[in-house]
Amino acid sequence: MSVPVTGRASADAGESAWHAAWLPPAAFRELGSRGVLVHGDGLLVDTVLDEVSRACARYGGRVWHGPPWQVDAELVLALREAGPVPNAVAEAARLGATPAVNGTGGGALGDEGYLLARVNGVTVVLADAPAGLLYGMFHVVRLGAAAFDDDLPPRRHRPALDRRMLDHWDNVAVHPVSGQVERGYAGGSLFWRDGAARREPARLRDYARLLAACGVNAISVNNVNVHDTEALLLTDRLGDVAEIAEVLRPYGIRVHLAVTFAAPVVLGGLPTADPLDERVRAWWAAATRRVYQRIPDFGGYLVKADSEGRPGPFAYGRDHADGANLLAEALAPHGGVVRWRAFVYDHRQDWRDRSTDRARAAHDHFAPLDGRFADNVILQVKFGPIDFQAREPVSPVLAAMPATRLAVEVQATQEYTGQQRHVCYLGPWWSEVLRFRPWGAAGDTIADVAAGRAGAGGGLVAVSNVGDDPFWTGHPLAQANLYAFGRLAWDPLLDPGAILDEWIDLTWLPVTKGDPAPVRRTMHAIMDDSWRTYERYTAPLGVGFMVRPGHHYGPDVDGYEYTPWGTYHFADRDGVGVDRTRATGTGFTDQYPPPWSEVYESRERCPDELLLFFHHVPYRHVLHSGRTVIQHIYDTHFAGVEEVAAMRERWRLVAGAVDPAVHDRVAERLDEQFRSAVEWRDQINTYFFRKSGVPDAHGRRIH
Amino acid sequence: MSVPVTGRASADAGESAWHAAWLPPAAFRELGSRGVLVHGDGLLVDTVLDEVSRACARYGGRVWHGPPWQVDAELVLALREAGPVPNAVAEAARLGATPAVNGTGGGALGDEGYLLARVNGVTVVLADAPAGLLYGMFHVVRLGAAAFDDDLPPRRHRPALDRRMLDHWDNVAVHPVSGQVERGYAGGSLFWRDGAARREPARLRDYARLLAACGVNAISVNNVNVHDTEALLLTDRLGDVAEIAEVLRPYGIRVHLAVTFAAPVVLGGLPTADPLDERVRAWWAAATRRVYQRIPDFGGYLVKADSEGRPGPFAYGRDHADGANLLAEALAPHGGVVRWRAFVYDHRQDWRDRSTDRARAAHDHFAPLDGRFADNVILQVKFGPIDFQAREPVSPVLAAMPATRLAVEVQATQEYTGQQRHVCYLGPWWSEVLRFRPWGAAGDTIADVAAGRAGAGGGLVAVSNVGDDPFWTGHPLAQANLYAFGRLAWDPLLDPGAILDEWIDLTWLPVTKGDPAPVRRTMHAIMDDSWRTYERYTAPLGVGFMVRPGHHYGPDVDGYEYTPWGTYHFADRDGVGVDRTRATGTGFTDQYPPPWSEVYESRERCPDELLLFFHHVPYRHVLHSGRTVIQHIYDTHFAGVEEVAAMRERWRLVAGAVDPAVHDRVAERLDEQFRSAVEWRDQINTYFFRKSGVPDAHGRRIH
Repeated sequence: MSVPVTGRASADAGESAWHAAWLPPAAFRELGSRGVLVHGDGLLVDTVLDEVSRACARYGGRVWHGPPWQVDAELVLALREAGPVPNAVAEAARLGATPAVNGTGGGALGDEGYLLARVNGVTVVLADAPAGLLYGMFHVVRLGAAAFDDDLPPRRHRPALDRRMLDHWDNVAVHPVSGQVERGYAGGSLFWRDGAARREPARLRDYARLLAACGVNAISVNNVNVHDTEALLLTDRLGDVAEIAEVLRPYGIRVHLAVTFAAPVVLGGLPTADPLDERVRAWWAAATRRVYQRIPDFGGYLVKADSEGRPGPFAYGRDHADGANLLAEALAPHGGVVRWRAFVYDHRQDWRDRSTDRARAAHDHFAPLDGRFADNVILQVKFGPIDFQAREPVSPVLAAMPATRLAVEVQATQEYTGQQRHVCYLGPWWSEVLRFRPWGAAGDTIADVAAGRAGAGGGLVAVSNVGDDPFWTGHPLAQANLYAFGRLAWDPLLDPGAILDEWIDLTWLPVTKGDPAPVRRTMHAIMDDSWRTYERYTAPLGVGFMVRPGHHYGPDVDGYEYTPWGTYHFADRDGVGVDRTRATGTGFTDQYPPPWSEVYESRERCPDELLLFFHHVPYRHVLHSGRTVIQHIYDTHFAGVEEVAAMRERWRLVAGAVDPAVHDRVAERLDEQFRSAVEWRDQINTYFFRKSGVPDAHGRRIH
Repeated sequence: MSVPVTGRASADAGESAWHAAWLPPAAFRELGSRGVLVHGDGLLVDTVLDEVSRACARYGGRVWHGPPWQVDAELVLALREAGPVPNAVAEAARLGATPAVNGTGGGALGDEGYLLARVNGVTVVLADAPAGLLYGMFHVVRLGAAAFDDDLPPRRHRPALDRRMLDHWDNVAVHPVSGQVERGYAGGSLFWRDGAARREPARLRDYARLLAACGVNAISVNNVNVHDTEALLLTDRLGDVAEIAEVLRPYGIRVHLAVTFAAPVVLGGLPTADPLDERVRAWWAAATRRVYQRIPDFGGYLVKADSEGRPGPFAYGRDHADGANLLAEALAPHGGVVRWRAFVYDHRQDWRDRSTDRARAAHDHFAPLDGRFADNVILQVKFGPIDFQAREPVSPVLAAMPATRLAVEVQATQEYTGQQRHVCYLGPWWSEVLRFRPWGAAGDTIADVAAGRAGAGGGLVAVSNVGDDPFWTGHPLAQANLYAFGRLAWDPLLDPGAILDEWIDLTWLPVTKGDPAPVRRTMHAIMDDSWRTYERYTAPLGVGFMVRPGHHYGPDVDGYEYTPWGTYHFADRDGVGVDRTRATGTGFTDQYPPPWSEVYESRERCPDELLLFFHHVPYRHVLHSGRTVIQHIYDTHFAGVEEVAAMRERWRLVAGAVDPAVHDRVAERLDEQFRSAVEWRDQINTYFFRKSGVPDAHGRRIH
């Protein structure tokens, strides 16, 4: 393939073989054409200095590493502790003692916060720690010319969530089934290839820049399904992890490792991995000590235990608190955390047994353990009770464990949302989840839960959608999901449409030919509602999981219906949906606090989009929308395909304005999305027509 | 695993690491305890002499390689041309000038025939060619003591079909999806391992013995889907094929090779594989000449072209006659044949299009070409129009090409019949196919079609079910399918129940502990009706293909319903089945001659077991059996599971009488068969209950 390049991304001045994404050189134009003063010392301050220097070298600006102070600096990036500041900076600092935009404290900026102001013709970024300076610099980049126009009142910026993490499901050795990257749709891994470390620091550094620029500060470098080769990353292959950490560190990104709970057996030769066994505790302590010797800022462990066949504490008659606390104990002396996944369910369920409900599983397993986890355990909870569907309710676990640090896990890799062959901008979906108030209008949001008390929350986590594809994400437009994830993790109250525009402006407008306005409008129009479009042409009304088994791409209505995976729709000739009420169903609704327990319990009050998740209803049941369920199915599926057709047409019209390599790749994928959407429409409509016998009210063709 | 050994199989006197199957040493007891005279010369006579000598060494008999004649020989195995014969033999020869049991000619015995008699206390096998002597000797083995009891009137035995072939779908290099053996359920390949020849002549020779003993005389050594490594068998790796031929030759088995139609491009570097291109013809001629230089008795080529993505003549605007004749021309000077598969259909069909019918495809493609194929082209036709289902009608192609040599292809490997985890004795099914009379009661049978005119038929072919498993076939009882295939290819009129008993007697009774009668009864009871049992608990009434996509094991009613593979059932809330009538359907019934065209066309006359193959009927349609379709579905599925339960119980009762290794393996597989049968029953019944809403008349539990 010809490698599409729309900007310069890497540390050197040449063009790189991968896409610049939201950091094209032109994004630094305003900053790089000024006089810039960087004040402070440290690894991340050096990073800031390096970024600024390269920008100024390109665009004719000038850089000072103060003191002494430069009176003609137009941008000051300074650590407050670094000593006396010039007048403008002092003024900003004084004014900055106001409440933070998204902080919890008073005047403090914290480890990652910064104060941004423009006073008397000087733009000022002040921070108390180097990471804050780095984030502040990227804020200036995002602002572009606006950072140097009118005065900006001093405002403090702190991340709402301390932990903003990407989980890579990358295998070191190519797995015979899941490949190099499990559920990866963007080529190979940035870290590993064919059983060994890739050792491509230039590209990794560029990746780190992109992550820092959108706010991500943590990463796990291997798949949560830890196979034999990957298990060794904890011991024999630790050097590979240390090398990655070395490259990511200048951008404030801490490395985590997915480990197998069976490590003491697999790696240590012990006869047991029992969390209460002294030898096991000693093994973990020693192994962890060795990790911190090599990687002093190591983040911690990520564990998928007793889930889908992975080993865990159940084998020893212990519970998940015992298991997690074992690792927590080993990590605590070094400041690390254990991230313990709550994705535990019976994947060998009997489809005949309608009383077992996979949706209940995480709550059943974990809610009783609230309060039993060590302080440095973070329970990592998938946002919904099933598995990253395009529509499901928010997991009740997130409202059930006030004494536990909870992280909310979303999936940037589009396993169930079109696999980066479909445009599906997930910002609005994640935003809806983060703004959801499980205790009702007066209570906290899910974002508040992730923030935790006193900043000790688990934060937000996404399964990464990145690979070694030149565009990073396979589908060029899927970059927006990575970007939006980082921005929402920093500030969950951001408007996803605004984030989208920010990403478009940074990534595409600098490289657009001619008037950028049509490209901006087109991209926005294609992407902003694309998640809802995807929902329209796929599984209806929250019922979920009508994908092809195994690879999960494309429709197969009954594909999982008679399997042990716990993902059913129970469609028969009369109706469809899963009865999860306490009155007549699995009782899942009871896992929610009021008011949602009552809202979901009621067929009348339940939101339309979740009706079939909670209720089994006749096809002629009338929705709040006034349409019957069956007519809703037909209508949304016809509409979804029409919307994809419109996307495709829109994209065609900007052919001349976008880099041909980008345009071609997106056009190809839109063709495939259209083909796939038609297939979804026809299979779903035909399936339900054959079952219900109800014709379409508008007489459209159902095969 | 501990290797189960129930007899001595290999050429040496020691025990081998694989099962003796139907040639345990004890099968040679009667023959080996006599005085035996072998008369004649040649490679296959040496084989006879070797077999006899080993048997006599073991059981105390005596062997002469005459002349001179031995007056005290109790068994004479003689080539008629080898010179004067003793009195008893002359008498037999004279009497033998009667019509053959299954021959076409008068007194001739042909290349493989023999005369068997017992006269005046001497058992005599006479043949005109060495292969006949070999088959005659194995006949004596099968007879056991009966060969030496009363007089046997002289009878001539000739194979009904000249070509009795096994196609191995073995890959040389392990294929990422299909593995070492495509659709193989018996371990690895006997010929290849991990990209190279296995070179295990001892086992291969034992395999050849087993094949010769049941009548097989031809084999293809690689998968019809010819991938890159396998393509080289024709050229660079020809030596590997020659080595295999060397080992199989003493047992009268000719080696064939599956080749890619694109070989001139892939191997020869030509820009085209156009069958009418002179360079292509010259390339095939030269390549074939080299093959015969190495393997003078090479059988010929097997080709899957323009099918499921394989290359073929369509790419050059040529038809299949052009393609097949190209290879035939290259093979003709050497006496080889091209076996051209008729398995050509559109595997990218649109499920929405109900006028396209995969069942029609082979006839549509090939019937118009009748008369255009060269004399040494054999068109290899799957027995049914779809793909080796447990029930489908006989392919109309077999009645549509009187001027073409046709081979009938069956599948011993149990792709769609339980994958050698289920007991499914296919003898009765193949027998039914071979006895089918497409032109009605007065016309020829399918076996006649395979025999051809003047012996120039294409014969019978099975996809092999053999691998490097110690029992050869994974499931020990699946050996019976291999045995039955060979015996039916020799004589299609044999009773499959009798073949089964023959196999049980040879294979198991010599190694049974205690009274063999209960073991014989038990095995017969388990196996004889097992194909119908399998049919009962799987897809109903000939509709077929309700298996899981990809691996084809276990139920998935809608698994192929919305795919491009052309295998649909069209079940809706009112009814089920495929309308293939000329009146209202795809017109497939018209591909049959009368009376079947009319029988299948008529919903009333169509046999119950094929009703849903030919008709879409309401669930309440009443069958000839008096039951409704829906009640038939319920009843057969409950019955099928009960039958498997009974099989399991029967097997339990002979635990003490059978080698524990064999008993355990069969018991394990019966457990899995039961589990799987329950799954089939429940999924099928639930599926149709949900769709039809009709309750079971007997109130049994449907989930």
